[in-house]
Order: sequence, then structure tokens, then C-alpha cells
Amino acid sequence: MVKAKYWEYSSKFVGEPKLSNFKLVEEDLRELKDEEFLAEAIFLSVDPYQQVYMNFYNFPTGIVMIGGQVAKVIDSKNEQFPTGCTIYGMFGWRTHTVVNLIMHTEYPPYILPDFGSTLPASLGLGLLGMPGNTAYFGFLEICRPKPDETVVISGAAGAVGSTVGQIAKIKGCRVIGIAGSDEKCKWLIDELGFDGAINYKTADIDAELKSKAPNGVDCYFDNVGGKISSIVLQNMNLFGRISVCGSISNYNNLHPDSVPEPLPEQQTTILFKQLTQQGFVVYRWKEQWLEGINQLLEWVKDGKIKYRETIYEGFEKQPEAFIGMLRGENIGKAIVKI
Amino acid sequence: MVKAKYWEYSSKFVGEPKLSNFKLVEEDLRELKDEEFLAEAIFLSVDPYQQVYMNFYNFPTGIVMIGGQVAKVIDSKNEQFPTGCTIYGMFGWRTHTVVNLIMHTEYPPYILPDFGSTLPASLGLGLLGMPGNTAYFGFLEICRPKPDETVVISGAAGAVGSTVGQIAKIKGCRVIGIAGSDEKCKWLIDELGFDGAINYKTADIDAELKSKAPNGVDCYFDNVGGKISSIVLQNMNLFGRISVCGSISNYNNLHPDSVPEPLPEQQTTILFKQLTQQGFVVYRWKEQWLEGINQLLEWVKDGKIKYRETIYEGFEKQPEAFIGMLRGENIGKAIVKI
Repeated sequence: MVKAKYWEYSSKFVGEPKLSNFKLVEEDLRELKDEEFLAEAIFLSVDPYQQVYMNFYNFPTGIVMIGGQVAKVIDSKNEQFPTGCTIYGMFGWRTHTVVNLIMHTEYPPYILPDFGSTLPASLGLGLLGMPGNTAYFGFLEICRPKPDETVVISGAAGAVGSTVGQIAKIKGCRVIGIAGSDEKCKWLIDELGFDGAINYKTADIDAELKSKAPNGVDCYFDNVGGKISSIVLQNMNLFGRISVCGSISNYNNLHPDSVPEPLPEQQTTILFKQLTQQGFVVYRWKEQWLEGINQLLEWVKDGKIKYRETIYEGFEKQPEAFIGMLRGENIGKAIVKI
Repeated sequence: MVKAKYWEYSSKFVGEPKLSNFKLVEEDLRELKDEEFLAEAIFLSVDPYQQVYMNFYNFPTGIVMIGGQVAKVIDSKNEQFPTGCTIYGMFGWRTHTVVNLIMHTEYPPYILPDFGSTLPASLGLGLLGMPGNTAYFGFLEICRPKPDETVVISGAAGAVGSTVGQIAKIKGCRVIGIAGSDEKCKWLIDELGFDGAINYKTADIDAELKSKAPNGVDCYFDNVGGKISSIVLQNMNLFGRISVCGSISNYNNLHPDSVPEPLPEQQTTILFKQLTQQGFVVYRWKEQWLEGINQLLEWVKDGKIKYRETIYEGFEKQPEAFIGMLRGENIGKAIVKI
């Protein structure tokens, strides 16, 4: 009998998630039935959506905390997922999972493409997974960048933002990232080739933008919302495009009882600058999923896209990794290694 | 020598425009030079943009107040605009204008198309002019409505909104208008064929929307911004489209010294509902101008689009008409007849 551990969502998030919102639980897994397989987690993901979904969809307490993982199939009664294969699955914060595909129709698990011998399987949670495709489709399909345009990215040192910036460079754009530390800003410029970076915690964002983007901003890839986005909008050019990927500045305020921070009206700016602002969830492009992954794989193999992971060791570190990621402690993709 | 009268923008708008912001001035016009012509206003337009442009572009006091007019050419040294023709021109709030085309390259005057014998020339300021094209292009090109979709329009009883609703009906949509009086709501339903109307001054907009649009809102044509738009956004469907045509709720707050009313963050809604919000200025489609006018002309001749004008008599009524229009006193297009 296999013993599994999982993290339960034991009390509702009010404001910033806390360790006390989670409870570690052990359970005995049942035997596999026909068509089922057993997945053992290798890497677990922490992502901003995991906070906001719990509140936005009002998930009940007592359930397994949601999330994706890279796992190895260690026993199988399903021909599609034979023992030994490495997969991605939305199984939640669990060490071991009895997977019945009937339970996973919305986000079906899939066998990871061959990343080659030098790239870690953990990239299936980051650059070569959901965050990578979020950058790929969410930037290219919504911002539709043209060469020589100026692109601004908030949350630029995260898993998605850092990839967006490098795709923008491949497309010939001028790229400015907004991030939360001098170390992150240095990484964006020195390692990833960004043209500029702004530490929003210490800089006058408006003045820095005007200096680093003297021709104005054409594309804004927005992970944060709130005041930072208000300032970027004021600096946009006629017919600018805004891809709304995330709204992390608001995620602490999404409990039904809380009132979001009021912001100045942006509508007059949207009107007169004739801006287009579009929100998206990456599964909109799920039919093209491998197209995105394969392009990113080619770019990373060619050295055109670099990645970085902040790795937390051990299943028991999962809530800490999650809280740290939401606070912006990570550079690149935050991963928990089991 | 021709005597002209004009309304001067004599002090800056702070909040709602007042009669004291304008001064009536008389002047002697000079003789026509080669290529010039003399236009005599027949109908003058008042439109919401006239308020916001003065602040947004920080126009100086002392200039002629901006605006369009339908005019008759009463003397001409220009073959393109012979004496006797009826034209549309952005000549400002003036009775008589010496027109030199070199001064009007951005919005060049044009001879009105033949409206037929039953339609008044004043339609060149409304249904068959800028507001008509604003409705035509701004709704069809940005909302891209599909049959059976639900369309909500704010400022629905104005020149633009009332036309948008009728175009939406032609396209097979379900149409709900938001307007500021029971009389306007009754007109929208009884005369224009809207499926529903909400008096925002007396109704619980959210409850009314949920009742009148039980399947949610697919397209929102927004003339107002502010709280009304916040409520409509909360009621939109996945992949909804928002055409930002105006932001009249904010126009009283656009003076450089004023702080706009704060509103709750909408970004999480835009994100999870994957909405597209696009601002526009109708001159984006100036190359297709007559295509829009001619289609609207065909629809009005076929009885598929009705119009209404609120007519103020006399040039001296121009500021009152403008202030009244901004307060929502008009139904349909507000016009001043000289």
C-alpha cells in the first residue's frame, strides 16, 4: 500500500496566504483500477494563480491545494501512461496520486516532450510548461509586437515575465522590465539582455519609464495590475496593446469580504490613446500547446532563451515556497523538488 | 463686409462647464482670397468630446470653441466648394467662416452626400455624420457582435448610443440600453426596439442587468465609464468585448488639478473573463468615412434606423445646448439651429 502526503487547503486565504492556511495530511492510497496509473511527484509548482483561483472560484476548505507537478509514472494500468514515463499533471500539492483520466478532463495530464539530455524535467513546470506558454501565446497573440517597438513587462523577473522579455528581444523589440530588487534588475539586463530594468520598490517608475522608453510604450505585458500598471498606461503610445496576464497586486484582496484598493480611472487614457487591453488564461490556446513548448525548446537549445529556477527542497517546504513566490522572493520559476 | 459671431472659450473648464466659460464675440470677416470660400452655419453641433478635448489637449483660452457644423457655402473662390453647396466642417462655434483648406488638413470639410428629399441636413451632424460613424465603426469593428449575443449600451439615448442599439438589432442581437430617465427608456423600447432599458438614476443596475440579460453580456458599448461600467463589466461573459467610445462620467474631472474619482480595480475581471477592452476615436476610420455614412443612409431610408434630435433655436443658445447635452437633457442628437 502506497502512503501519500498532501497539503490540504485548511482555512480560507484572507489577505496574504499564511502557513496556517495549510495542513499536511497523510493517506493510504487505494489499489489501481483498470485504466488508472500511479504518479509520484518529482517537482511541484507554485504559481500566482494558485492563490487567486481559491478565492475567485470560492473553493471550499478541506480539499487538496491545487497545482501542477512533474511526476514519474511508477505503476500503471493505462497504456497511454506506461510505467517509467515522465508527465505533467494538475494533481495538486501531492506526493503520490492515483490518476484516473476521467477526473482530469479539463486539464489532462500529458507525457513531457523530450527535452534532450541537458535540460531538467523541472522545465516542464516553467519555461517548457504553463508559464512558458503563457509568455509565448499571451505576449505574441495579444501584444502582437513589431520590430523596434518598446515592450514593458511587470513581474519581469518571474517565470512568465522573464520569458516574455526574451521572446520580445528575439522579435526585435526594445524591452524594459519592472521587478522588485536590484538583483533581479541586474539579472534581467546582464543575463537576459533586457534594455532596461526598473526596481519598483526604490525607483520613481514614471520618471524611469520616461527616461528608458523615450519613444513611449507600445506593448505592456502586465502581471501585476494596480498602481504600477496605472503608471505604465499613462506612458503608452497611440494604439498600444496591453496583455493582462496577472493581477498579483490584487490577489491579496480577492476574499469576498475584502474591498479592492481603489485606483484612478484609466478609461480616458484607454479612450484617447486608443489602447487595447485584453485579459487571457493560457488554456485558451490548449489546442496549440505543443506548438508553443516546441518553439520554446528550440530557443532554449539555441541559447536564445535562458532560464533560472529558485528551488526549494522537500515536500514540506511547499507552503513556504508558495508564500515566498507571492512575496517575490524567487528569481525565475519557483519550484519545489521532492 | 460680412459680420460673424463666435463663441470664445474664455475661461478653462473646471468641473462641469458653465455659461461663464464662454463669451460671445463679433468680428468683421476679411475678403476671400484665392482658393477660399465663405461658409454660413445652418446647424451647429454640441458633442461630449468638445468638453474633454479642451482639457485633455490643454487648449488655451481665447480661442474659438471647437465643434462641427453643417453650413452653406455662400461665396466661393474654390471650385471644390462652389457657392450653394451644403457641407460639413469643423469650423468651431461660429456663424460665418472664411475657410482656407490649408487650415483644415486634419479634419477636412466635405460636401454632404445627397440625403434625399425627406431627411434634414442636420443629420450630417448626427446619424449621417460623426456620431453615426462612431456608432457604426466603433460598434461593428470593436465589439464584432454575433447574432443572438447580448449587447449593453451606456449613454443609450444619446446620438451615438441610440444608433448603436439599432445597428445591434439589425445584426440580430439582444439589446439593453442604460439611460438617465424613464422617458428615454420608454423611447428606446417603444420606438427603437431595444429589448430592455435601465434608468440608472433610479434602478439597481446590477439587479436589472441580471434580470434583463440572464445569459450575461457579450458586448458593451461604453459611453460613460465610472461606476456604471464597473457594474456592466461584472456581468460580462467569457471573451466579452468592450468598445470604449466615451467616458463622460470622468469629463468633469479632467482638469489638470483635479483627482478622478477612484474606482474598484477591474483588472481581475478582465483577466478571468478574458475580456477585450478597446478605446477608439472615430477618425481612425476616416478613409472609410463615406462607407459608414452610406450604409446608415440606406438603413434610415429603409426605416431600419430611426433618429431623434433635440433642437435648440438660435446661435446664442449654443452654450446652453452644450451644458444641457452634458447633463443628459437631450434625447437623440443635440443640435443648435441657427
